[in-house]
Amino acid sequence: MGFTIGMDIGGTNIVCGLVDSEGKLLNKIKRPTEAGLGSGFVFDKISGMVNELLATAGITHSDVSAIGVGTPGFIDPEKGITLFASNLKWTQVPTAEEIRRRTGIPTYIDNDVRMYVYGEAVAGAARGYDHVLGITIGTGLAAAVVNQGQLYYGSGYMAGELGHIPFPEIPYDCGCGLHGCLETVVSATGIARQAKDQLAAGRDSVMREWMDADPGSSLTAADVSKAYDAEDPLAVEIMNYTGRLLGKGLAAAVTLYSPDMIVIGGGAALAGERLFAPMREQLQNSVYSGYWERLTIAQAQMIDDAGIVGSAMAAGQRLKQANTV
Amino acid sequence: MGFTIGMDIGGTNIVCGLVDSEGKLLNKIKRPTEAGLGSGFVFDKISGMVNELLATAGITHSDVSAIGVGTPGFIDPEKGITLFASNLKWTQVPTAEEIRRRTGIPTYIDNDVRMYVYGEAVAGAARGYDHVLGITIGTGLAAAVVNQGQLYYGSGYMAGELGHIPFPEIPYDCGCGLHGCLETVVSATGIARQAKDQLAAGRDSVMREWMDADPGSSLTAADVSKAYDAEDPLAVEIMNYTGRLLGKGLAAAVTLYSPDMIVIGGGAALAGERLFAPMREQLQNSVYSGYWERLTIAQAQMIDDAGIVGSAMAAGQRLKQANTV
Repeated sequence: MGFTIGMDIGGTNIVCGLVDSEGKLLNKIKRPTEAGLGSGFVFDKISGMVNELLATAGITHSDVSAIGVGTPGFIDPEKGITLFASNLKWTQVPTAEEIRRRTGIPTYIDNDVRMYVYGEAVAGAARGYDHVLGITIGTGLAAAVVNQGQLYYGSGYMAGELGHIPFPEIPYDCGCGLHGCLETVVSATGIARQAKDQLAAGRDSVMREWMDADPGSSLTAADVSKAYDAEDPLAVEIMNYTGRLLGKGLAAAVTLYSPDMIVIGGGAALAGERLFAPMREQLQNSVYSGYWERLTIAQAQMIDDAGIVGSAMAAGQRLKQANTV
Repeated sequence: MGFTIGMDIGGTNIVCGLVDSEGKLLNKIKRPTEAGLGSGFVFDKISGMVNELLATAGITHSDVSAIGVGTPGFIDPEKGITLFASNLKWTQVPTAEEIRRRTGIPTYIDNDVRMYVYGEAVAGAARGYDHVLGITIGTGLAAAVVNQGQLYYGSGYMAGELGHIPFPEIPYDCGCGLHGCLETVVSATGIARQAKDQLAAGRDSVMREWMDADPGSSLTAADVSKAYDAEDPLAVEIMNYTGRLLGKGLAAAVTLYSPDMIVIGGGAALAGERLFAPMREQLQNSVYSGYWERLTIAQAQMIDDAGIVGSAMAAGQRLKQANTV
């Protein structure tokens, strides 16, 4: 009793962890998703992972009150359906019911970014704050809001798509059909893309030497960080531009949501101050001082585990709500 | 029983109305605020207005379950304090307690824009929608969100300041300390200001003839609408520019809040399609199609009364919540 299981089903891996009632991750396992073998195969694998997790901890299914699952894409958390997840190639998959049926444990699903931010809000860097705006800068840029413990969903559970606000100064088309979306610049992909574009346009950079030395390789956001640390002018320019644009996007989000905490996670957040220093400067100059004064900005604490802990805690919360209605 | 009173304390007038449990406004009265005579004077006047309202309806204080009050400025709805209202010149005024003490009726206060939007959400144009974004275009530009019947507040009750998102193409300083805030253009003041600036810069317009014919007068947003209807190129340009900027601001709000309804009120909303046509075109081009498809946009239905009805209904709701805790 008191245990919950949190799970993150990604395009590459499934991570599954046992969490206690305080939000402490006790044990986790990771397996390749192999989504190409079909959703039934994936759910059978998940059932096996749950068995393994319980066996390792020496507990049984009846000790676990709920399973929480974060998946990418569009989710209907109330119906428990993955509406569309492009990197799993799932459309209208009844994820919650499939897992509940195999494990006998009440299962809740939600979007993976919301679960990540929820994890940071209840048990990570944003713990103790009432109005949390969380963003993840990874392949894309996404956001979620946890307001006095409650996730903000909006119509169609589609709120918080910070990465899809268009900016006139951004020259890139976005996969969503718009032009100039913030995430075409502010993401790991966007940072790497800027570097590649500038090198292709003939800009001088230490990154060119690295590419020439290893012709088969592809530039990453981490390379741009490395070049930044070598005081490469192009890398500094890219980080400043990216950070300032993130600051402009956050200015809109802060003015509309009025958070007291912004927590920043995702792979590209590892760029840290290279990105955050210009972001903070721009944000401070772009919001009414009353917002800035009440704001704390922090890097995510749980990095890899926020989604697991968030899914588990959110599932526990939803089970409690279901039982009190 | 079942009656509530809604009140709007503005810089010029106090309006006070009796509302039934269905949100129907039964009767209302209006008096000059005379804020210069001090808050004590204003509260005594309010107490007298309540007596008058009840006498007219033939009911007593005990028939009224709650009073709801909307005031401009920064409000602490939980403590019932008007923190700062510039056009009343009130700082840290315990508005709720002052009215409760004089009337014996539980009193709740909130920001006037939130109450306006709440009124439209529960009993006006947005009735029946789950995720309502309401904006008022008046002296300034403000917004509020009602999500499944619940107002969204954010830290410091400061969420929704759509008018204070800065845009690089806006040349005006804002009273809030920033440069280029949306409301310096998208407001009655902003529309009139653009016309005056262009006339001062020598632009030709039918509005110049009107001003020359009546030298003591000052241009208003209504004049710009009138000139628009006379196909004045300057007026058309101003409305298009203002509408497009409103569309850009709403694009950020829609992407972050994901509403299924936008309801638009306030004096400058009377410009109607002159403003809304370019706004809609810009908004549709600036948001992911999934947002646009689920969106209805409507003009406020209750115009003058939304704030009264909203305050009354919100007070009834808060009393109910207080009694169930």
